[in-house]
Amino acid sequence: MRAAIFQGPKDITVGDRPDPTVREPTDAVVRVVLACVCGSDLWYYRGDSEHPVGSIGHEFIGVVEQTGTDTGELAVGDLVIAPFLFSDLSCTHCRNRALLNCVAGGSFGDGTIDGGQGEAVRVPLAGSTLVKVPGSDHDDATLRSLLTLSDVMCTGHHAAVSAGVDRGDTVAVVGDGAVGLSAVLAASRLGAERIIALSRNPARQELARTFGTTDIVTARGDEANETVLDMTGGIGVDAAFECVGTGESMTTALAIARPGSTVGVVGVPHGVDVPFPEAFFRSVGWRGGPAPARLYIPELLPDVLDGRIDPGRVFDFETDLDGIAEAYAAMDERRAIKSLVRVGSL
Amino acid sequence: MRAAIFQGPKDITVGDRPDPTVREPTDAVVRVVLACVCGSDLWYYRGDSEHPVGSIGHEFIGVVEQTGTDTGELAVGDLVIAPFLFSDLSCTHCRNRALLNCVAGGSFGDGTIDGGQGEAVRVPLAGSTLVKVPGSDHDDATLRSLLTLSDVMCTGHHAAVSAGVDRGDTVAVVGDGAVGLSAVLAASRLGAERIIALSRNPARQELARTFGTTDIVTARGDEANETVLDMTGGIGVDAAFECVGTGESMTTALAIARPGSTVGVVGVPHGVDVPFPEAFFRSVGWRGGPAPARLYIPELLPDVLDGRIDPGRVFDFETDLDGIAEAYAAMDERRAIKSLVRVGSL
Repeated sequence: MRAAIFQGPKDITVGDRPDPTVREPTDAVVRVVLACVCGSDLWYYRGDSEHPVGSIGHEFIGVVEQTGTDTGELAVGDLVIAPFLFSDLSCTHCRNRALLNCVAGGSFGDGTIDGGQGEAVRVPLAGSTLVKVPGSDHDDATLRSLLTLSDVMCTGHHAAVSAGVDRGDTVAVVGDGAVGLSAVLAASRLGAERIIALSRNPARQELARTFGTTDIVTARGDEANETVLDMTGGIGVDAAFECVGTGESMTTALAIARPGSTVGVVGVPHGVDVPFPEAFFRSVGWRGGPAPARLYIPELLPDVLDGRIDPGRVFDFETDLDGIAEAYAAMDERRAIKSLVRVGSL
Repeated sequence: MRAAIFQGPKDITVGDRPDPTVREPTDAVVRVVLACVCGSDLWYYRGDSEHPVGSIGHEFIGVVEQTGTDTGELAVGDLVIAPFLFSDLSCTHCRNRALLNCVAGGSFGDGTIDGGQGEAVRVPLAGSTLVKVPGSDHDDATLRSLLTLSDVMCTGHHAAVSAGVDRGDTVAVVGDGAVGLSAVLAASRLGAERIIALSRNPARQELARTFGTTDIVTARGDEANETVLDMTGGIGVDAAFECVGTGESMTTALAIARPGSTVGVVGVPHGVDVPFPEAFFRSVGWRGGPAPARLYIPELLPDVLDGRIDPGRVFDFETDLDGIAEAYAAMDERRAIKSLVRVGSL
């Protein structure tokens, strides 16, 4: 089969990889229909994090092509969403909702296992990992939104859940990438009344408003903190989301969160210096980490299928597998919020 | 009146200060019966944190001597517990349980307002700050335990509440000072089944066992982390408490907390470098900060009065106001867990 190959920083090609087959009874093989590029893939692309030469990509939806003998109710022909982590859902860590730490689990596209940016994927622990999408004849807009449930929409939702968003809350979202925008949508869905988005980019501001943002802050750093505090009577927001993963964004999120609140942290951290004492004296904690997407999909899926949320609007660039290098470049250069990769048909 | 005066690092004397009087309608004057030295006072004593020359001490119980015209149900002669912060309990921050951030509040003994280590204290916002102790003729052991409700026992309880301790949990307490020992008692009270205390000091180990500790770990640093992980089947504890405030203790607490859990952080931080990325990838968050002692006292007070908990056992050194320098020195040199200062009689 053909698949994206990470060759090194700024060097993603398309090459041949062995056709995946069922090796374990719990495996399934999925033919990829739609895939996409994650903001965290850019850390490898930019050379900020190590990634072995090989498969890449961890977000995809597709059709089941083969099943092992122990894959539960999965059947050949099922349209499925693959959360970015495969996991057994039964170990202590999974029961504690820390799916990244599953004793038998892992992440797609880490160089040792097939990535989502390819024609097919061997999915380990398929019965507890893949989520079947009911119905058929889904239109393209729906398919794009279903794809976001593999990571970005669930990650935005995780920010909101971790921060404990409640109906009527005022929230602030640090980060106007696809995760931040998804977090806006998640907060809106959970009933936040006022949603402040920190963004300087007109296209992202517009999508943020579509997703429920009521206020835009274009300032950064200390000026952003002061602006948000002024907007909230000097109190700070009930829930702040950190959706970037840098020291500056973490500092901002902790500073604009009101005393006694919890910051929802989902930006993959890069050597973040946390201003811990300042947060301590304001009783601002944090929760988050890699989202347990598999656990959120059952809750979010009906909203996508019924059209109550349309997270697929984060995709503002699309190409096919041959265009994978451009999919990365467009995001790296911030020409695109998030790149969709059309790999196969239903 | 006579009161302890912070003169500078390692220099606490007893001197004269103006007799406190009611200045605002919301003030009361309390004659101090028992006071004590806080672990956080040692940061000033050691010169690690700034403190102005002047009053010091923020933990005391005493008898109301004067009341303003707006102090609620307080009456002259009431035995009261003063939480370490005075607060209005009505502002947004107080409603969000972040009492340190009360818009009208403050902390006793900060050099500008009377400290608990003195014969009397003007208590601002007395009606919403002081808690009347029902009954009379309390014995000395009870009074000592009541004194702990002004800070240390509530702070230990805050660690347990912030970490979300549940019945049957396995917990680990980093820090064998009075706060850590109180946190052991708090965890035991909330139903933790297994309580691991990190301690190298035989006297503190013994008290930890009295308070409910089931396992002692004497190792430190990486060795401590490995030991606790081994003891918990490689999983980590359901709830870890950070009761010291150093980088090493925070690193240990985050490392031994199981993925998906929340560390209860109550140690006053001193330039703590938080290993944030490691915590992120284990989905370990943190909550805590300065304890909202005033809000916990009503819950803990009946347990003290009925003898179900005896947190006053943390006091293993006692003196009077004239011995205040020795009260500090004993704690600084770790000869004492916590120093009691007998100031007046009931």
